[in-house]
Amino acid sequence: MFDKQVDYAVEAAGYFKELASKGVIDDTAINRMRDLEHQGDDVAHSIIDRLDKTFITPFDREDIHYLAKEIDDIVDMLNTITSRMKVYKISGVDRRLVEFAGVIEESVRAVACAVKGIRSMKHSSFVSRACVEINHLENVGDSMRDEVLAELFETAKDPIAVIKWKEIYQDAETVLDVCEDVAHVVESILVKQA
Amino acid sequence: MFDKQVDYAVEAAGYFKELASKGVIDDTAINRMRDLEHQGDDVAHSIIDRLDKTFITPFDREDIHYLAKEIDDIVDMLNTITSRMKVYKISGVDRRLVEFAGVIEESVRAVACAVKGIRSMKHSSFVSRACVEINHLENVGDSMRDEVLAELFETAKDPIAVIKWKEIYQDAETVLDVCEDVAHVVESILVKQA
Amino acid sequence: MFDKQVDYAVEAAGYFKELASKGVIDDTAINRMRDLEHQGDDVAHSIIDRLDKTFITPFDREDIHYLAKEIDDIVDMLNTITSRMKVYKISGVDRRLVEFAGVIEESVRAVACAVKGIRSMKHSSFVSRACVEINHLENVGDSMRDEVLAELFETAKDPIAVIKWKEIYQDAETVLDVCEDVAHVVESILVKQA
Repeated sequence: MFDKQVDYAVEAAGYFKELASKGVIDDTAINRMRDLEHQGDDVAHSIIDRLDKTFITPFDREDIHYLAKEIDDIVDMLNTITSRMKVYKISGVDRRLVEFAGVIEESVRAVACAVKGIRSMKHSSFVSRACVEINHLENVGDSMRDEVLAELFETAKDPIAVIKWKEIYQDAETVLDVCEDVAHVVESILVKQA
Repeated sequence: MFDKQVDYAVEAAGYFKELASKGVIDDTAINRMRDLEHQGDDVAHSIIDRLDKTFITPFDREDIHYLAKEIDDIVDMLNTITSRMKVYKISGVDRRLVEFAGVIEESVRAVACAVKGIRSMKHSSFVSRACVEINHLENVGDSMRDEVLAELFETAKDPIAVIKWKEIYQDAETVLDVCEDVAHVVESILVKQA
Repeated sequence: MFDKQVDYAVEAAGYFKELASKGVIDDTAINRMRDLEHQGDDVAHSIIDRLDKTFITPFDREDIHYLAKEIDDIVDMLNTITSRMKVYKISGVDRRLVEFAGVIEESVRAVACAVKGIRSMKHSSFVSRACVEINHLENVGDSMRDEVLAELFETAKDPIAVIKWKEIYQDAETVLDVCEDVAHVVESILVKQA
């Protein structure tokens, strides 16, 4: 079930990168992102419902719960950013945001590898590598956001634009933070299985 | 004990609507809201203390803990918004905020129904309906906030006013998010009891 | 292990106060704060790893997990504020921030007392007093932040400065909120041991 949930996350991250590259957030974009969010939500709820009815679980009950919630948060956040860009009437391609969306997509792909790999201990070194990658991309995103914000505050003449972009970049960085949280849970599951 | 806690939440939501309708946040308002917050906090602590000393609980220990915390967060957030309005020296009636406060009041009332209903399986269909209502109101609030923000960013000449109102509407929407979280816990308790 | 973790938090809080008093955030400051954050993070991970491999624990497994996470959040937040001040190119001494940093240092010191005291029931009245102190300092910080923000919004001509300082003071208050969360966990551990 987690496979399906992370697949939605990968799709949402890919679509977000596409939207950033096109620089147009129209109703089609909003609807498709919202659909992905709803579908991801449904899978998350199914996982938790099934968990509530099951006595024996492959991993710690709490870890499963937390994992479902965090993967859900990835899609949620991407949906939030997209609808925010529409609300703020942001249009045109922002080169930095495209770059950032690329980092997000890489990180979510690594999350998918890590989550799909935990079923079998055979893949544990592969899973560990994905987790290291996710941690690395979080640091990359941190620096990117700081650079963008420093530039924004230094050159900005329009405070309203500062308010808008500051929030968008902080939200974008939050997606990478959530991916890092997933990596931590996955690493902790590996430790317990070892 | 949860009955008492949700009653404080209902009272706080009703009072918040009254304040929004009057458009005056004076010291009396601040004190009464803070008192409600303290009283709600005390009940939450009593619930958790008693939980820590009890071996057998009617529902999952974690669910009880989480429920107490979330209901507490509703009153907390209403208190935060109220004191923020005072700090920001916001006065006068904002028609949209009155509407929003109305949606919050409805949602908190539905939370009270849901929470009071979980004691007996006889009410399970009634509880489910309240949860559906809470989810619906969260979507309503989402759209309202987006509309207000879109208008605010489009027409605003004063960036300081944008900063103030953006935060107030986002916090108001957070109250509905917390109500939705309560609905999810209640639904999960229903599943486990079934 | 918690002793080491809170010692890093105390060091970070002391260093933050020093930085606020000097009014200069240079690369040395950024690096030292980031190192403290990494070291604190490593201890937190060791605690959680060891917890995952241990069957019998002195306190509730969840409480230990939560405590490690919250103490980690203190150092995280101080690191966030520091790097934010660099990004926002804030320089010069802000008297209010120095005061606030002083309250944070006091609160983190009380957190250290409380956390170090839970090992032995002999210190329980001492631990309780530290928790009361933490709660008190959170209220102090709340009022300080409200005063600063009220003044900022009233006198500010530069919206960009409002955006910067509003975030810094809100983050500073968040450190005190996290300390209060630690106090709640510690109090709940005391109740269970009694």
